[in-house]
Amino acid sequence: MFAISGYKFSEKQSTARQEITMASKPIRVTVWNEFRHERSHEQVQKIYPAGMHAVIAEALEQHLGEAVRTRVSSLDDEEQGVTSTVLGQTDVMTWWGHAAHDEVTDEHAERVVQRVWDGMGLIVLHSGHFSKPFKRLMGTGCGLRWREAAELERIWCVRPGHPIADGLDAYFELPQTEMYGELFDIPEPDELVFISWFEGGEVFRTGCCWTRGKGRIFYFRPGHETYPIYYDANVQRVIANAVKWVAPRSSSPYVTGGHHEPESLSPIAAKHEMDASLHE
Amino acid sequence: MFAISGYKFSEKQSTARQEITMASKPIRVTVWNEFRHERSHEQVQKIYPAGMHAVIAEALEQHLGEAVRTRVSSLDDEEQGVTSTVLGQTDVMTWWGHAAHDEVTDEHAERVVQRVWDGMGLIVLHSGHFSKPFKRLMGTGCGLRWREAAELERIWCVRPGHPIADGLDAYFELPQTEMYGELFDIPEPDELVFISWFEGGEVFRTGCCWTRGKGRIFYFRPGHETYPIYYDANVQRVIANAVKWVAPRSSSPYVTGGHHEPESLSPIAAKHEMDASLHE
Amino acid sequence: MFAISGYKFSEKQSTARQEITMASKPIRVTVWNEFRHERSHEQVQKIYPAGMHAVIAEALEQHLGEAVRTRVSSLDDEEQGVTSTVLGQTDVMTWWGHAAHDEVTDEHAERVVQRVWDGMGLIVLHSGHFSKPFKRLMGTGCGLRWREAAELERIWCVRPGHPIADGLDAYFELPQTEMYGELFDIPEPDELVFISWFEGGEVFRTGCCWTRGKGRIFYFRPGHETYPIYYDANVQRVIANAVKWVAPRSSSPYVTGGHHEPESLSPIAAKHEMDASLHE
Amino acid sequence: MFAISGYKFSEKQSTARQEITMASKPIRVTVWNEFRHERSHEQVQKIYPAGMHAVIAEALEQHLGEAVRTRVSSLDDEEQGVTSTVLGQTDVMTWWGHAAHDEVTDEHAERVVQRVWDGMGLIVLHSGHFSKPFKRLMGTGCGLRWREAAELERIWCVRPGHPIADGLDAYFELPQTEMYGELFDIPEPDELVFISWFEGGEVFRTGCCWTRGKGRIFYFRPGHETYPIYYDANVQRVIANAVKWVAPRSSSPYVTGGHHEPESLSPIAAKHEMDASLHE
Repeated sequence: MFAISGYKFSEKQSTARQEITMASKPIRVTVWNEFRHERSHEQVQKIYPAGMHAVIAEALEQHLGEAVRTRVSSLDDEEQGVTSTVLGQTDVMTWWGHAAHDEVTDEHAERVVQRVWDGMGLIVLHSGHFSKPFKRLMGTGCGLRWREAAELERIWCVRPGHPIADGLDAYFELPQTEMYGELFDIPEPDELVFISWFEGGEVFRTGCCWTRGKGRIFYFRPGHETYPIYYDANVQRVIANAVKWVAPRSSSPYVTGGHHEPESLSPIAAKHEMDASLHE
Repeated sequence: MFAISGYKFSEKQSTARQEITMASKPIRVTVWNEFRHERSHEQVQKIYPAGMHAVIAEALEQHLGEAVRTRVSSLDDEEQGVTSTVLGQTDVMTWWGHAAHDEVTDEHAERVVQRVWDGMGLIVLHSGHFSKPFKRLMGTGCGLRWREAAELERIWCVRPGHPIADGLDAYFELPQTEMYGELFDIPEPDELVFISWFEGGEVFRTGCCWTRGKGRIFYFRPGHETYPIYYDANVQRVIANAVKWVAPRSSSPYVTGGHHEPESLSPIAAKHEMDASLHE
Repeated sequence: MFAISGYKFSEKQSTARQEITMASKPIRVTVWNEFRHERSHEQVQKIYPAGMHAVIAEALEQHLGEAVRTRVSSLDDEEQGVTSTVLGQTDVMTWWGHAAHDEVTDEHAERVVQRVWDGMGLIVLHSGHFSKPFKRLMGTGCGLRWREAAELERIWCVRPGHPIADGLDAYFELPQTEMYGELFDIPEPDELVFISWFEGGEVFRTGCCWTRGKGRIFYFRPGHETYPIYYDANVQRVIANAVKWVAPRSSSPYVTGGHHEPESLSPIAAKHEMDASLHE
Repeated sequence: MFAISGYKFSEKQSTARQEITMASKPIRVTVWNEFRHERSHEQVQKIYPAGMHAVIAEALEQHLGEAVRTRVSSLDDEEQGVTSTVLGQTDVMTWWGHAAHDEVTDEHAERVVQRVWDGMGLIVLHSGHFSKPFKRLMGTGCGLRWREAAELERIWCVRPGHPIADGLDAYFELPQTEMYGELFDIPEPDELVFISWFEGGEVFRTGCCWTRGKGRIFYFRPGHETYPIYYDANVQRVIANAVKWVAPRSSSPYVTGGHHEPESLSPIAAKHEMDASLHE
């Protein structure tokens, strides 16, 4: 048994916790990628010969330098790239998936969710909107409209004071993109940073922030694999900013589960005998 | 095939939808109850001889009269009380569970979640915070601290203009309650209506609102089965108000899933040939 | 002196309050209009010969029928159309202004603000974003980008379950509008219902909800006076829905000011003598 | 004339802007204090002989070290302590006032508000809830209930992952405080970090976050002048954390006012001649 501010936890509960109190310095980022289309489709391979994760990881190092240390993992790695060791050494994870969401096992998805609750930052990219961890954290269906027609996207900043918008202009453009359109079936974002305009007529909530447990989540729309989106300096800048923003920054305890506190902090007038069998 | 404002849906997608556009008049409320402790524990049986659901349903009829029509269902009913027929005829569901959350099958929990997305209002009561539908809709662990010590609870209204607060004073008291204390592990509520003060020293976000899909959710804390909480006029009033507030009130279409919109609404300059194999 | 749930108020404080507990049946709507351009500009007069307020009021009666009773008032009316009598008989006010925001006196703007705090619903239309009451309630500058170029606006619903979206499709179009573009300098809306797409390349948070005090506020963008926007069925429907949504619906007391509560509700261990001169 | 991403501003508009893009290193903090009761009341003078501002400034230096540089200013300083020079050199301002809110001129209050919009972080302490800058930024009355009875306050963290909660336990106590109770008449906070429990029976939203314009605002309740609150290590820690959290961290442009953008970013089909007299 041990105590936190008067609360008693069993050792078992204690060791089960892997709460993150504060990101390491440098921030340890794991760039997770489904990494299938880069291998199966020549069109994608030309753009991302070493996989999207390689480009994203390199961009983070260029933008954040000493402040970050990256690793990559992917679906076909050991335990689908989310071993306890990997997660235990990750402050921030970026997630890209598209065709193989269903192959991620429920157990592995749950590990990611649990790590977010314990404080890990999660940046969900583009088609990751349909990934198991994201849907599980949102509690919604996360659907949207889409069209691949090489159309112009103009991304407007609606929250210029937000750290994720640092270094960006009032808007930036991506000349050829896959369109994602509303209704984006998500909970109302805690903070909405970017809204996209599409040439073909739709709008989209492109940069959205939430907190779940101790962890922060940022969804960022750009990234279709048939366009060189992750080479774009503005896109890179947003992801780099988001790494800093979602990184864990609090050591306040995150006490989960249903904790019994039989002793009160302040006096209670009544005398009461609890029937323990009601709480089994 | 049929069309909504230029979007084409297959019949299959169409019939799969059971979207609720507007609550019936009267609002059809299903009071779902685990209904175990009332049968297994004499102490609880004395308070709720016909089950908590009976008291709640009767209270709704008294408070809302012609505006509501209630039915009850419980865990040991056919398909755990959430048959397609029941859900298809329910505008608002109230949910109370405690000891048997794990017995609710994933499939049945998912039915409730899906019905909420499609517009059904959901009122989660007391220990329902740990129910599968609530945890699934929140995307968090939904834990809390608790103590059963017959202590005073004082429930403060922090949103006096909210329809759920109608008819209530600045605060109301429950003389003997089980305590629930923070940290309540939920996403930041869209609207926080009540905060509880407990004699023993804790506080709790007792009345919380969220939207998921088209459905509204209200969590309301009071209700431990060893106290006659659901006979309290203020508690009844809150639940009755909540029924009206969570009831579906919009026929705007809720298009879910990943819908392909190959034709744009406004002209696109580029000519583009999509590789369909990337979207399989 | 009188008491609400143990709190004591002086008569003076009491009579100063004009709190609205519940909208009348029918809901009393005052359509406030600056009503200058309709008289000074032939182009506008052709579209709105009796003023925009006449069209809006008529639309509300058509859409809401017996549920609503409308009146109109305008800047050049007695006390700028916001006499105590008018406000005291108004459950919901709609506000349109453009060229003469500065002519509205601070005192009159403050009356509107106070009435919102006390529960009146406020629907701010189009160029009303720069009106004194709206800026005062937001606490921000409320600026935006604009262009009058007769361009297409496509208004997307991002909250299909919201009562304000009832009866609307996934989107609707206004063929010729004045453009309003982000950054719209507002506090993050409590609920964001609509986002606009503009032909010329901008996006805008077009339908936004907030609560201030007991009152609800809905900002709705469409409405430039050189286009027949308020004859559009979808626009009318949104405003009619909003009337119902912002209408006061709670009798819970809204205790304002700094109220001294010398007697505690629960026992306090310490003995303490307050130095009243510190609180003068 | 100069341009930002295609938008044209006149020099005048440009020079009128004093937008903060990023906090200096170290962060420049101005601790503003009304500084009256420390001089007029012996009881207060004993606790804060050099004024509360001296204690707060010293605490920030101890907690944040090289990361911060503090200055103090007060109501009886030149231009009430908010000269253009002071504000122009301030990244974060803390504000404490009580008896003399009305003496702060509207012009000076407006300067503070404008600086917040332009990016300055603002930490409003205790009775500052009734200060002009805070009320102006909130758009509400900011009232509350209060009692000075030397009662225990227990401050619960409801957002353990928030940077402002870093270093804190699940709760902390202040043995003797002035009570502030709900209803706290504020807009729903963007993020609610702390809720207080009071021995005498009330609750209070004690740590609240908002954004207005580019600036972040944190309200923190503790601080009555007759108790040595600002010597408390937890209180100091919260304020120090808040300084880091509200400090400006984005260079994205904050374009205010009503900006005319006559040229569109994307082509518009219609030909249109604007009547400029409608926009004067």
